Amino acid sequence: MPKFRTVRGMRDFLPKQARIMRYIESLTREIAKLYGFKEIITPVVESYELLAAKSGEEIRQRMYAFKDLGGRKVGLRPEFTASIARLVATTLRNEPKPLRLFCVGSLYRYDEPQFGRYREFWQSNFELIGSKNPEADVEILTLTNDLMQKVGVQNYWFKIGHMGILRGMLAEEGIKEENQNPVMQKFDKKLWEEGLNMLKKLKVSEKCLRTIKSLIEIRGAKTEEVLEEIRKRVKDYESSVSAVENLGEILNLSFESGVKFNVSIEPAFARGLEYYTGMIFEVFVPELEIALGGGGRYDKLIELFGGEPTPAVGVAHGIDRIMLAMEKQKIKPKIPMEPLVVIIPVENELKSKALELAIHLRRRHVCAEVEVMGRTVTRALQDADRRGATHVVLVAPRELKRRKVVVRNMRLREQKTVDLEKLPNEILGG
Amino acid sequence: MPKFRTVRGMRDFLPKQARIMRYIESLTREIAKLYGFKEIITPVVESYELLAAKSGEEIRQRMYAFKDLGGRKVGLRPEFTASIARLVATTLRNEPKPLRLFCVGSLYRYDEPQFGRYREFWQSNFELIGSKNPEADVEILTLTNDLMQKVGVQNYWFKIGHMGILRGMLAEEGIKEENQNPVMQKFDKKLWEEGLNMLKKLKVSEKCLRTIKSLIEIRGAKTEEVLEEIRKRVKDYESSVSAVENLGEILNLSFESGVKFNVSIEPAFARGLEYYTGMIFEVFVPELEIALGGGGRYDKLIELFGGEPTPAVGVAHGIDRIMLAMEKQKIKPKIPMEPLVVIIPVENELKSKALELAIHLRRRHVCAEVEVMGRTVTRALQDADRRGATHVVLVAPRELKRRKVVVRNMRLREQKTVDLEKLPNEILGG
Repeated sequence: MPKFRTVRGMRDFLPKQARIMRYIESLTREIAKLYGFKEIITPVVESYELLAAKSGEEIRQRMYAFKDLGGRKVGLRPEFTASIARLVATTLRNEPKPLRLFCVGSLYRYDEPQFGRYREFWQSNFELIGSKNPEADVEILTLTNDLMQKVGVQNYWFKIGHMGILRGMLAEEGIKEENQNPVMQKFDKKLWEEGLNMLKKLKVSEKCLRTIKSLIEIRGAKTEEVLEEIRKRVKDYESSVSAVENLGEILNLSFESGVKFNVSIEPAFARGLEYYTGMIFEVFVPELEIALGGGGRYDKLIELFGGEPTPAVGVAHGIDRIMLAMEKQKIKPKIPMEPLVVIIPVENELKSKALELAIHLRRRHVCAEVEVMGRTVTRALQDADRRGATHVVLVAPRELKRRKVVVRNMRLREQKTVDLEKLPNEILGG
Repeated sequence: MPKFRTVRGMRDFLPKQARIMRYIESLTREIAKLYGFKEIITPVVESYELLAAKSGEEIRQRMYAFKDLGGRKVGLRPEFTASIARLVATTLRNEPKPLRLFCVGSLYRYDEPQFGRYREFWQSNFELIGSKNPEADVEILTLTNDLMQKVGVQNYWFKIGHMGILRGMLAEEGIKEENQNPVMQKFDKKLWEEGLNMLKKLKVSEKCLRTIKSLIEIRGAKTEEVLEEIRKRVKDYESSVSAVENLGEILNLSFESGVKFNVSIEPAFARGLEYYTGMIFEVFVPELEIALGGGGRYDKLIELFGGEPTPAVGVAHGIDRIMLAMEKQKIKPKIPMEPLVVIIPVENELKSKALELAIHLRRRHVCAEVEVMGRTVTRALQDADRRGATHVVLVAPRELKRRKVVVRNMRLREQKTVDLEKLPNEILGG
């Protein structure tokens, strides 16, 4: 009976999984580089007030929050954007815009553990700060599309909407933002009836209710048609009409610039985080119910945190969810196989020579393990085979006297005597 | 007045610093690969009992510990080894040995913030599990030495000792392990007098006290001499003599295998973590009081956590401390500079063309940013210069009609008209 285990909702990534996680992380870092996003690292522990400010009721309730030893109320970050908005409102306040910021790391939410949902999860996060223009939204969509292409997931689509459609209507109906928020939470979870009932209680007009009901049913991939349909229905709400137009601009600019992705435009789509003000989106694959990533425009957050009024748009990609999608779709990471050499001293006295050889090989960028268990050659060879060694180097006294070692090619099951000087080339296939 | 800031003891890494952090991380990952250490990822949140078990009183008191929403007492990991020992005692229980495990990430201790010491810090961690032999200890020392070489820090040295010297004496004096621990804590902090007073209260013999006092004064680089000196003093304590012999074997094997590092052998050196049983070490540079890394052998921990009796040796490298050492020693990371292209559409109608060009360049692995602020060409050019762009591509209607763009080399302050097809080569210096 093991004495300790992982805390419920937490998990270990074993080497095979960790390798894929780091592979996806490296792809996100490559995207960041290609798009000019500079990496920053923000702390996992932030003030509770910061994290709670605009994260939305559901996330607030599921936050890892506690008092530190100094009595400060702190939390483990449930998402990155609050930290970045803090940074932009303070330390980076005077940096010329646009700012392109990238970060990657672990996040924490006390959700009920279920398939693909853990209490510690991993995201890469891109924020483009300072531009209100649709090309900024397009950049965020494009880089997300590039990531999906690089990863190689198939049949993914972008669910896309605009917070301004619903919020615009509700604002014109005189509903305050704080009263809109719980409705958006319900819509985010597709609890349409519950959301509509809340709206009834808030005494929105019959027309508004009817319009929202009709928006819930709209979804489609044909941009012009779907946008025209939405525009018709929200025509009496000026700010909703502008939202539809903004969404159209973004989508058209994307397609004109040659970006190829499948979209599903959904005007009643909302996201749990409260800070979104414009275009919002999530990426899905057919095999998973949860989104691989999501983001949108948030033009008020940095100001709310005490910075200058600063428009911004961003996205977070779920690294562990992308890993899950790769598994489901049987996509292998494109990591080249490299030689692995196991060095076995056949006598105790030759240990130092084995260690020396290993150092020598590693300097030539060859991966080398030394037998450290003091096993017989036969058992060490079996183990090397099991570990996937491509070559075994036997350090034996007779050969060593002639400055030679025995190299066994584990794939070809062949062995030969090789000059010490020629060893790296022999293994690197030179 | 900013509304939010980082929590005391926490910090942000801005792009320049984050770049160095990730650079050092990539060097540790390279070492892991070359030595055959497989990466694993364990959670930041672990059960308090696991983290507290053998971390030592000081770390226990400074742990970020709290109850999660399910009422479980949890903590933020103050170090990696407990998590890895848990994994080896459970999930990896039946894996053939040796296991070489690597991990890298953030750790948490509620220390008083001071120069180089933050409450969130970053380590790479290597554990070689399953071997009791000195070549395993040597491997851990060697890879740490390799990391220092790769980073390029100068004048570093290994402070090295063996837990068996002091603990052996105290055990033979009949002092229980739990009573030894507080003394080790004092010695770890060089509070020699306090430690000695504790020992007096524990009623160790006069000879033992005298011996320990004399050990405190010993430190030196000449292996044979220093070890002989220690051996003489502890000669009446059999297990201390074995400890000295083990340390000698490890050091000799290191030097015989051609590893070059400066050592300072210190027999009264102790480490705060309670799980060490054998060789222990820390790496220092003259410019910093805090260690850049440290580790040692812990042969009982996995068994204590419910696993098979499993000898193990490991090391943790402080990534942010290594960064600090690089700063102090003015060492620049070896990251190649790459071209950065800023693409400016001279008219609004050419935005999509600019976006398209950027996608095209990125596919050829060229870093490309698109002007998203809708600024005039003059202002966008100034900004591109400030951002360190190597090239600016101007997308203008007249040139575009002939399938050309204007490329401005920002270093040479020259511009020319280039065919769209030749653009990537023009920028890559083809």
